[in-house]
Amino acid sequence: MPQSEFELIGKYFSRLGAERGDVRVGVGDDGAVLMPPPARELVVVTDSLVEDVHFPKGSPAASVGHRAFAVNLSDLAAMGAEPAWALLALTLPQADETWLDGFARAAGDLCRKHGVALVGGDTTRGPLSMTVTLMGLAPVGAALERGGGQPGDAIFVTGSPGDSAAGLALEQNRLHVSDPMSARILRDRFLFPTPRCEVGIALRGLASACIDVSDGLGGDLEKLCAASGCGAEIDAAALPVSEALAGAVGRELAREYALTGGEDFELLFTVPQAKLTAMNDAVALGLGPLTRIGTLVPGKGVRVFTRAGVMQFSGAGFDHFAR
Amino acid sequence: MPQSEFELIGKYFSRLGAERGDVRVGVGDDGAVLMPPPARELVVVTDSLVEDVHFPKGSPAASVGHRAFAVNLSDLAAMGAEPAWALLALTLPQADETWLDGFARAAGDLCRKHGVALVGGDTTRGPLSMTVTLMGLAPVGAALERGGGQPGDAIFVTGSPGDSAAGLALEQNRLHVSDPMSARILRDRFLFPTPRCEVGIALRGLASACIDVSDGLGGDLEKLCAASGCGAEIDAAALPVSEALAGAVGRELAREYALTGGEDFELLFTVPQAKLTAMNDAVALGLGPLTRIGTLVPGKGVRVFTRAGVMQFSGAGFDHFAR
Repeated sequence: MPQSEFELIGKYFSRLGAERGDVRVGVGDDGAVLMPPPARELVVVTDSLVEDVHFPKGSPAASVGHRAFAVNLSDLAAMGAEPAWALLALTLPQADETWLDGFARAAGDLCRKHGVALVGGDTTRGPLSMTVTLMGLAPVGAALERGGGQPGDAIFVTGSPGDSAAGLALEQNRLHVSDPMSARILRDRFLFPTPRCEVGIALRGLASACIDVSDGLGGDLEKLCAASGCGAEIDAAALPVSEALAGAVGRELAREYALTGGEDFELLFTVPQAKLTAMNDAVALGLGPLTRIGTLVPGKGVRVFTRAGVMQFSGAGFDHFAR
Repeated sequence: MPQSEFELIGKYFSRLGAERGDVRVGVGDDGAVLMPPPARELVVVTDSLVEDVHFPKGSPAASVGHRAFAVNLSDLAAMGAEPAWALLALTLPQADETWLDGFARAAGDLCRKHGVALVGGDTTRGPLSMTVTLMGLAPVGAALERGGGQPGDAIFVTGSPGDSAAGLALEQNRLHVSDPMSARILRDRFLFPTPRCEVGIALRGLASACIDVSDGLGGDLEKLCAASGCGAEIDAAALPVSEALAGAVGRELAREYALTGGEDFELLFTVPQAKLTAMNDAVALGLGPLTRIGTLVPGKGVRVFTRAGVMQFSGAGFDHFAR
């Protein structure tokens, strides 16, 4: 039952997400008109998901809808910005109402949770893919960057990286996990990642540099180091691997997943020594699950200390054109 | 010679477009950090181009690069916003340097012409498509909308709609035009449309409603009418068809192209009677090529007056899911 593009947009996307008083014109005109508050800088991010590249063919619509927004929320989190407005450019092979309903519900739930209003977009016919643009706000000068780290700064990561890559391997039948509960946890970490928006906002004024872990912890730490002009040493034993992952693949392989897996959407950030006390206070106040894994050092590159010795990390991260 | 995604981004997209002092963090971090000026509203638009849907397979890279930004600049023009910042999400089947160079040059030329800085984006592997997000600025309350028209308002259109559709028909060998100069003009109107940004900005405070002609003049006028809660009467003889188009297909068919063609990226707007003098003054000062084609009336729908009589316009416009 094909419907016109305009009816589709109206039905599923005209009021998706939070209601915000700063949206003067939303979905339905040639553009959206927004009213940024004074003394704020605007942080903008965009990321595409393409079927068979970023999610397996046949992925649940709810997962695709969640992830399309979660990966962008994670980028805003890495910048320390408060999410505000979203645009959705959706390309579909056909107008499948069941799929659209599942996609829009999950996207709407996540947007409402983070106070994001969908203010515009575009719907076209073509191979399944979507590009979400998110706009967020931070006090002037407060947005976090990758390049502010200094030797001596402590390196932290949120959550338990590696789970998502194992979840994807499970989805693709490249990995078998006998414990159904662990398998479920790992799959959900891939299908429904949690963007660390509250942590990112709390890191304003605390973190010297921040990046989100999308291409693998090791590769993303390399990028943070390159931008900051220093190197990093991390302690493999300190990597926060989940019990689900360690139980499923063993602690050694779990650490490898954590270092190279990708699609974690955790925050990787550095804190100057002088701010570690304030950082610990924030953690005590419930900042969320985060773990110190190492220290920035002079030089360049990422070295990983293991029981077997020191290894130079050489993973290039997940790179769409290098494979 | 495959290159890494990051090298590609660096080489072609790290400094594309204008340099702007209000970009605190540009391409290369998790997000861009922008500094909106005070007392401005933010206007945001996004549009995707998909190969074989929005442009024929094998289209020149320069045309694709130009159009990806032009269609979005046209949306900003329709809102009366001054273009400022762009994001580009580009999905490519492979890293073809010749194609990327042609795409980026044309995109960069158009962005510089309109003062737009590319501040971020995403590059992924997949079927050729791209989504551009543009952000523009207008004084608070000044952005134009579709819904402000009133019965009695004069209807205007810029340029010569219909040329682009004829140009696409030429590109697809669905139309033959014997005069090579006319054929060239029409093809260029499809391949390199001119967004009417200066006109849109000049229409602030003059136009009661504005929309850009992307789906066909008749269909887009229907949308403006629906949003404004009124109808329209237009005079077929007043439709500004170009000499190239009239010479190529005859004046009668040229008017049909003008009414239903689409992809014109002209502005269609209404001006209250009380502002027609100011409007004429603006035209005398060089506002650009524009033509009065009719009047908004009470009721709904679009009626076209021709020598043969009155016809109710029933074109649904170009609708990606209805065909």
